[in-house]
Amino acid sequence: MHRKAFETDFIAEFDELLRWRRDVRRFRTEPIEPGLLDEMLDSAELAPSVGNSQPWRWVEVRSTAPREKVAASFERCNAEALKGYRGDRARRYATLKLSGLRDAPIHLAVLCSPDSEQGHGLGRRTMPQTMEYSVATAVSTLWLAARARGVGVGWVSILDPDDVTAALAVPHDWALVAYLCIGYPEADDDVPALQRSGWQTRTDSRERRSVV
Amino acid sequence: MHRKAFETDFIAEFDELLRWRRDVRRFRTEPIEPGLLDEMLDSAELAPSVGNSQPWRWVEVRSTAPREKVAASFERCNAEALKGYRGDRARRYATLKLSGLRDAPIHLAVLCSPDSEQGHGLGRRTMPQTMEYSVATAVSTLWLAARARGVGVGWVSILDPDDVTAALAVPHDWALVAYLCIGYPEADDDVPALQRSGWQTRTDSRERRSVV
Repeated sequence: MHRKAFETDFIAEFDELLRWRRDVRRFRTEPIEPGLLDEMLDSAELAPSVGNSQPWRWVEVRSTAPREKVAASFERCNAEALKGYRGDRARRYATLKLSGLRDAPIHLAVLCSPDSEQGHGLGRRTMPQTMEYSVATAVSTLWLAARARGVGVGWVSILDPDDVTAALAVPHDWALVAYLCIGYPEADDDVPALQRSGWQTRTDSRERRSVV
Repeated sequence: MHRKAFETDFIAEFDELLRWRRDVRRFRTEPIEPGLLDEMLDSAELAPSVGNSQPWRWVEVRSTAPREKVAASFERCNAEALKGYRGDRARRYATLKLSGLRDAPIHLAVLCSPDSEQGHGLGRRTMPQTMEYSVATAVSTLWLAARARGVGVGWVSILDPDDVTAALAVPHDWALVAYLCIGYPEADDDVPALQRSGWQTRTDSRERRSVV
């Protein structure tokens, strides 16, 4: 029987990919190389999905009007979020650059079609949320496929999902999972931006593991 | 400025990893090599998370009692699911092997701690579901890290999440995202099991892409 094995060198380089993946908020404005977005989407299509339902829907947002509406939603939600912080935490929040919406050449909305027939309902009767989780795994896969090609991805969640689905005029039952900025990053880094800015460091992973 | 680039050979091999990742339901019962689970979890900790909140919680289920309760939940939910199909579809459903709970040496429950302070709420005010999506990206990362090491992962969603959280006695606000079977697979394949069994093929990705 055919057996596909991966070498130690590949495993080490894969861990480097995980280490150098970043949530990018500072993009160069130039377009990415032709064909790269298609390659990344082809990779993302290989992500796991409940019942092989492939519930992800990719909407590239090229027109000015929906891009402006999404940027306006971000500005509004971000101003609201700032009001929820006090003192030093508020001052720090105000200095964070939390989206690259104005610079990134590509905006990609990723939605879930939860009522899709594909998969014939398998695996999602008791946990329907696995449809949206499947979309999140596709985003995760896209992200790594992008970074491997030198392309940065930033996930913008400071948005009202209703604003976004209205701006995109997608079918009413599609749910926004992620709004992604995509382009070449201004810089590479192996430390999360929120850690560099002093907002939130990674914490000790042993506290998140237990055995029963 | 340091720039971490990945070579063409690595990108090709990474795409092979995506192609040979499978949702495994047929496991060899032998334990996996010592240290491998820790390596996989260390990799998964590098997954993206909203506000760097790292909301994933890993619970390895070693004891017989909770394992039996989870297996019983699967049997019950699977029998219920079968009742929802008719005719040929029902006959086909009945032949599918949908979990490796009885064979896989490792059971790993992956939960979300949605009220965690880590991240100081950043990015999740308008889209709190991004906490669970972050956990799904960690599962996706773990899955690839496992497959790179020759270890198979199967995501079992035919479960009542309340049964599982009760069996594990986790804090009441933790939500089950994924229940994973982990071990060496009986066989490798580059075609989804549900496609091989005729349940659901992958479909044309162009229908899932649009531009606005």
